[in-house]
Amino acid sequence: MTVTAPKGFRAAGVTAGLKASGNPDLALVVNDGPSKAAAAVFTSNRVAAAPVHWSRQVVSDGRVDAVILNSGGANACTGPQGFQNTHTTAEKTAEVLGLSATDIFVCSTGLIGEQLPMGKIVPGIDAAAAALSADGGPEAATAIMTTDTVPKQAVFTGADAEGNEFTIGGIAKGAGMLAPGLATMLVVLTTDADVQPEMLDVVLRDATRVTFDRADSDGCMSTNDTVVLLASGASKAVPSAEAFGQGLTQVCAELARKLIGDAEGASHDIAIRTFNAATERDAETVSRAVARSNLFKAAIFGKDPNWGRVLSAVGTTDAVFEPDQLNVSMNGVQICQNGGIGQDRKLVDLEPREVLVEIDLQAGGAEATIWTNDLTHDYVHENSAYSS
Amino acid sequence: MTVTAPKGFRAAGVTAGLKASGNPDLALVVNDGPSKAAAAVFTSNRVAAAPVHWSRQVVSDGRVDAVILNSGGANACTGPQGFQNTHTTAEKTAEVLGLSATDIFVCSTGLIGEQLPMGKIVPGIDAAAAALSADGGPEAATAIMTTDTVPKQAVFTGADAEGNEFTIGGIAKGAGMLAPGLATMLVVLTTDADVQPEMLDVVLRDATRVTFDRADSDGCMSTNDTVVLLASGASKAVPSAEAFGQGLTQVCAELARKLIGDAEGASHDIAIRTFNAATERDAETVSRAVARSNLFKAAIFGKDPNWGRVLSAVGTTDAVFEPDQLNVSMNGVQICQNGGIGQDRKLVDLEPREVLVEIDLQAGGAEATIWTNDLTHDYVHENSAYSS
Repeated sequence: MTVTAPKGFRAAGVTAGLKASGNPDLALVVNDGPSKAAAAVFTSNRVAAAPVHWSRQVVSDGRVDAVILNSGGANACTGPQGFQNTHTTAEKTAEVLGLSATDIFVCSTGLIGEQLPMGKIVPGIDAAAAALSADGGPEAATAIMTTDTVPKQAVFTGADAEGNEFTIGGIAKGAGMLAPGLATMLVVLTTDADVQPEMLDVVLRDATRVTFDRADSDGCMSTNDTVVLLASGASKAVPSAEAFGQGLTQVCAELARKLIGDAEGASHDIAIRTFNAATERDAETVSRAVARSNLFKAAIFGKDPNWGRVLSAVGTTDAVFEPDQLNVSMNGVQICQNGGIGQDRKLVDLEPREVLVEIDLQAGGAEATIWTNDLTHDYVHENSAYSS
Repeated sequence: MTVTAPKGFRAAGVTAGLKASGNPDLALVVNDGPSKAAAAVFTSNRVAAAPVHWSRQVVSDGRVDAVILNSGGANACTGPQGFQNTHTTAEKTAEVLGLSATDIFVCSTGLIGEQLPMGKIVPGIDAAAAALSADGGPEAATAIMTTDTVPKQAVFTGADAEGNEFTIGGIAKGAGMLAPGLATMLVVLTTDADVQPEMLDVVLRDATRVTFDRADSDGCMSTNDTVVLLASGASKAVPSAEAFGQGLTQVCAELARKLIGDAEGASHDIAIRTFNAATERDAETVSRAVARSNLFKAAIFGKDPNWGRVLSAVGTTDAVFEPDQLNVSMNGVQICQNGGIGQDRKLVDLEPREVLVEIDLQAGGAEATIWTNDLTHDYVHENSAYSS
C-alpha cells in the first residue's frame, strides 16, 4: 500500500538530524527500471523553493531515476546558497547510487527562509542509500512528515487489456498550507506499468486537477508543492490512458482525503459539493469560496449550521445563479430553500467528524466537490507556534 | 465627535428588545435639513440583505430624510417576508416622523437567516422617535453594536473657500466579516455642508475606496454592508470637492481604523504596506493577499516574524515583481532581502499591538496599505459560538 508496492522500486527513510525531535527526516525512492519514465506537477506559487526550480529541470526530459526528500527545512527563499544546496543534494545522491545528478529529483519541506544543514544531509544520504529496500515505502512515508500525525499511503492494482497486472503506489505529506495549485504537499507516486512520459504527464495533470487541487485546507499556497510520478515498467503491463488514469485518480483521491483528514487542528472533515451549476468551473468556484470562509469554518467547529455564512460566501462569486434560487443542505437537512429559511437548523447533526455541505445553484448540470476542514483553536495554536 | 456634531441632525438609540442581552438595538438618525442630499455605497455581495435592496432604491434619487438601523438581526436571506419587514420598518418610521417612506433608509445587522421580530421593532420606532435629540449621536452609535466592544465615532471640521465652517461626523459598527466591497459594517456619515447628491456620491466612493475597502479583517464579505452620507446644508458652507473629500476621507479612515482595532478576538492591528509597485492595484493586491493568509495571521498572533509566509502569499498574486528582488520588513527590521534571508528575525519586536509589514516589490512607484488583524483563539471562539 505504498511506493514500494509496484515492482522495480526501493525506498528508505532515515534520521539525518534535521529535526530537533530526532524523528526520521530524509527519504529516498529509487526507480530500478527497466523504464525510468516520469512526470511531475509543481506549485504555481511564483515564490518557488530551490528544489522546485531544480526538479522542474530534472523532469523536463521525462526521466527521473530517484527522488530524495527532506523534511525539517523547505529550502525556500534561500537565494543562490539554497539552490547550491539542492544541487549538492542531487550530486551526492547520484554519487552514492551511481547515477547522474540530472536524473535526481529533489523535494524539501519545512520552515521557509532557513538554509539546510548540509553537514547533516550529506551523511544522511549515505545512510539512506544503505537503508534502501524493496519494502522501505513506509519508512519513506514517515520521514517526509512535518506536522502530519500519521504517514499517508495508498495503492491501486489494475490490469491492461491483455490481463497483465500493474500497481500504482503513493506516499504523501501535508497537514496545512493546503490549497489549490497544490498544497504544502509532497507526493511520490510509483507504478510498475510501462507508460511513456507524455502519457504520464497528461494523466497526472488530469488526476491532480480533480483530487489534490480540490483539497483546500486553509487557502494558503505553498512554495514547495510537488507531485512526482515514476514508472518502472517492471510489470510489463501497458494499460490504456483510461485504465491507468482511473487507477491514478483513485490513488490521488485517497491521498488527498488523507491529507485533509490530518489537517492541522481540524475537528471536522468537510466536503462542499456544489451541483446544478452552469459549468464545472462555477461549481468549483462556489465550493472553494465557501471552503475559504473563516466564518463558515469557525461555525462548523462550533457545530453551528450557520447557512447564512455559506450564502454570504456564495454571493462573492461570479458563478451563474439567482440569489433567491439557492438551496443549501448540511448533512442531508435542507436548511436554506430558495435563498431563504428552509428546514429547522436544529435538525442538523454536526457531531460527526464528516460534514457534507450541498449547494444547489439551480443553474445547470455541472458539479464539483472541494474538501476542506474546520477552523479550530488547535489550528491557530499550531500555526502561531510553528517556527518559534 | 459623532453624527450629531454637524448642524441639522438629531439621533437616538433605544432598546427595542431584539438582543437577548437587553442592550440598545435600534438607532435613528434624522436629517432636519434644509437640504436632504445623500449618497450611499453598499456591499457588492450578490446575496444582499432586504434592507440593502430597499435602501439602494431609496437613495437612488439622491435624497434621504432619515436612517433607521437595527442590530440583533441582519434580515438577510429572509425572502419576501424579510423585504416586507423592511418596508414596514420604513413605513412606520415615516409615519412617526411625518415623512415619506421612500425617503427612509433602512439598515440591519446581526444573524443571517432569521426573520426580524416586528412586534418589537414597531414600538421600538415610536420610542426612538421620542428619544431623538441634537446630541443623541453616541446613543445611536451604541445601539448599532453587535460584537463590537466599543462604539466608533469620528468627526472633522473644515471650512469652505469663504471661511464658512462645516463639520463631518460619523458612526460605525463592525467587528468581523470585514472585507472589501465593504465589511459587516454599517456606517452613517453626516455633514452640515451644502453639497449636492452628485458630488456626495463621487466623494463618498473615492473616500471608501481607500479606507473601508482597505480594511480586511477576515476576508469575509457581508450581505449588509452599507455606508450612507447625509448632508443637511445647515452650515451654509459650500466646500470644494477637494476640501470636502479630504475631510470625508479623514473621517472614514479614522472609523476604518477603529473597526480593525476592535476586530473580533484580535491581539494585533496589522498594517500591510506594499510599495515600489508597478501600479496601485498591484500594491493593493499584494497587501490583500498577505492580509488573507491565515498562516501569516496566526504567526503574528504567536509573535513569530515568519516572513516566509509573507513571501508565499505574495507569490500567489499576479503583481509585477521578481521573486529574487522582494524585500520585507516587520516593524522596521528588514528580515527578507532580495527574496532571501535578511536581518536576524530575532530583532523583530512583535510585542506591541501595532504591527507594520512593509513589502518592497522593486517594480515601480505605487503603494497601498491594507489594514488587518491577527488570527487568534478568541476569533475562533467568537465565531464558533456566535449564533448558538
